Amino acid sequence: MKQIEGGVTAAKGYKAAGVFAGIRRKKNDMAMIYSEVPCKVAGTFTTNIIKAAPVKWDMKVVKESPFVQAVVVNSGVANACTGKQGLIYCEDMATTAGECLGIPKNAVLVASTGVIGKQIPMDKINAGIHDLVPNLGSSLEHGILAAEAIMTTDTKKKEIALTIELGGKQVIIGAMGKGSGMIHPNMCTMLSFIATDAAISKELLQEALSEDVKITYNMISVDGDTSTNDSVILLANGLAENEEITEKNEDYYKFLQALNFINTYLAKRIAEDGEGATSLFEVKVINAETEDQAKTLSKSIIASNLTKTAIFGNDLNWGRILCAMGYSGAQFNPDKVDLYFESIIGKIQLIENGVALDYDKETATKIISQSEVTAIADIKMGHSKATAWGCDLTYDYVRINASYCS
Amino acid sequence: MKQIEGGVTAAKGYKAAGVFAGIRRKKNDMAMIYSEVPCKVAGTFTTNIIKAAPVKWDMKVVKESPFVQAVVVNSGVANACTGKQGLIYCEDMATTAGECLGIPKNAVLVASTGVIGKQIPMDKINAGIHDLVPNLGSSLEHGILAAEAIMTTDTKKKEIALTIELGGKQVIIGAMGKGSGMIHPNMCTMLSFIATDAAISKELLQEALSEDVKITYNMISVDGDTSTNDSVILLANGLAENEEITEKNEDYYKFLQALNFINTYLAKRIAEDGEGATSLFEVKVINAETEDQAKTLSKSIIASNLTKTAIFGNDLNWGRILCAMGYSGAQFNPDKVDLYFESIIGKIQLIENGVALDYDKETATKIISQSEVTAIADIKMGHSKATAWGCDLTYDYVRINASYCS
Repeated sequence: MKQIEGGVTAAKGYKAAGVFAGIRRKKNDMAMIYSEVPCKVAGTFTTNIIKAAPVKWDMKVVKESPFVQAVVVNSGVANACTGKQGLIYCEDMATTAGECLGIPKNAVLVASTGVIGKQIPMDKINAGIHDLVPNLGSSLEHGILAAEAIMTTDTKKKEIALTIELGGKQVIIGAMGKGSGMIHPNMCTMLSFIATDAAISKELLQEALSEDVKITYNMISVDGDTSTNDSVILLANGLAENEEITEKNEDYYKFLQALNFINTYLAKRIAEDGEGATSLFEVKVINAETEDQAKTLSKSIIASNLTKTAIFGNDLNWGRILCAMGYSGAQFNPDKVDLYFESIIGKIQLIENGVALDYDKETATKIISQSEVTAIADIKMGHSKATAWGCDLTYDYVRINASYCS
Repeated sequence: MKQIEGGVTAAKGYKAAGVFAGIRRKKNDMAMIYSEVPCKVAGTFTTNIIKAAPVKWDMKVVKESPFVQAVVVNSGVANACTGKQGLIYCEDMATTAGECLGIPKNAVLVASTGVIGKQIPMDKINAGIHDLVPNLGSSLEHGILAAEAIMTTDTKKKEIALTIELGGKQVIIGAMGKGSGMIHPNMCTMLSFIATDAAISKELLQEALSEDVKITYNMISVDGDTSTNDSVILLANGLAENEEITEKNEDYYKFLQALNFINTYLAKRIAEDGEGATSLFEVKVINAETEDQAKTLSKSIIASNLTKTAIFGNDLNWGRILCAMGYSGAQFNPDKVDLYFESIIGKIQLIENGVALDYDKETATKIISQSEVTAIADIKMGHSKATAWGCDLTYDYVRINASYCS
């Protein structure tokens, strides 16, 4: 497995584009991904009862369409809570894109991200699609334009690409993602698009994705709010010409490992680019009885507003971490917990068996002042573990969200 | 039922005091409540697995002691995550108070609130107790001194008193509470002390309290964090000489109604005095199928960082309210939801059957700009309802919590 330059256009046969359609005031706001040949597709979507129109559309396409060949995305308006008209507009987006590309509308996935409750401006969207198609290209730059066009409050584009060797063939997996606020995935998060030239059966493609989102996107939280639009889309067009993966053989697990690397990377980038965030806060719960227990505890810690503000202030308020573990719903013995902080400059133990050690405050403060901080809670009950990722809660989070609409 | 002046000293036979023991830098930090005669006691405590030492002590006292006669409280240090030493110190507090008052130590309840993980300074605590006892008094001012001494990041003291007539006798219920951060009670919240002269059996006293916290303290959230120290204590000394309530007769329900008024009042004061808050955000979910469903939905809305920042910014981002309902875990039909905002200056409908109406933005903005704002979600499924209370999320919340320890 080797990381290479590029993103969603890195694998064979994929093109992308990003353009300005005027939905947002200044920045590019529409993107397209296109595969020269039909793709198998897997998808995971928000568990929020209120699902945006494009989520409903995509769930149907992923389930029923024989193949998929394009994804069209707009930022600025989420097309969520938009009723029947929203569904019609969403289908119109797929229809227009299909017509422009010469493929059936049910081979087109749609994604939207932005304000909830407004109808998407169809004249701008249609013009944008007509503008996207002639701009499609397979270069690195085309991937970057697409990755930038799907950003909302994100401050950095998020893309990654890997190669793996499957049965003597070079297989590439490229991806782009976005997400910054309303991030607390309960199935998968926000928008993430992964494009591979691997040959793999649709069933295993979906299984690989469904398994992996549980330990990647589902383990991040920016603000505890599970979006109406969360979608992870995984396309596989088979152009790498590896022997098709149709069972859980060595190739499948190599593919799964690479997919996990990509999803972990994007999930961490989304967490660290949380609205207003200044640092990535990683939490590892180790020596748990079960993985579920470790997940519940680690997610409770990264989702706590009090731990998040303490991380922002480089404040050694570790009691809040124990407190968040205590109300998580998971069972454990508070009198057995050891707690450590770790960052690039070192590691320090703060708590032994539930009680504070006489640790060096200056060293500890330096450790938690880095832009990536890890808390490790050892609960001494077994051999399972989990990792969750979040970010600090800052003045800028409040600023951004106090005036999102106005 | 009539509201009267005063707080925890309003009912017959109760005295209180508040003094400066030097645990906090400037403000009074120790309080005591004392009843001239033995009291029946009821209590509800945090469901956090990590329970502070005084919570453990009080749970034992409430369960096992034949009577209770005093409560001693310190602010500044929570005595949570303090191991065996913390439990010893907590018992020492009760012992000292008992000796000074001439009552058994197991007739003394203890409460602490403040930073987690530090041992309480026993020399200051002991000196404080010795100072509290000669300062006990039954005037309004004594009640105020106690209510002020238990404050931490609270900006306002919280007290209330009511009279009701039970079987021809005047009964008084007085109370004080505190709470501002780490507020997301899952059984009851923070510190609340209710002192009545009613005569009522211990069983019914506990049942009345346990029932009522579910629809009062348990329906507020400031930051989603369930504290390690949450305690509601209800004392009843019988000095009103009403016929003792030993069954669920008319008197019981009158008492319950008064208790609900007190608890609702204190819960709302805690929510509106949430750390950094500028407004009280009330959410009513009506026409639900069950009360539990309405509770889950309303709590999800008031606990969402995104709805809270939108309320702070007077931003009409109502999509976030639907989003928070959608991920709450409760089932409902998003296409049937009507949503209204209401405040002292009027009421406006924003959503009908899940889709935005063409409402007047200026009017709506004025309505949500008030210091008390109510959102009403009609889910049209049945006849149950629930109300939850929260507050906005502001720059000051971040400021307060980024430097709590440092």
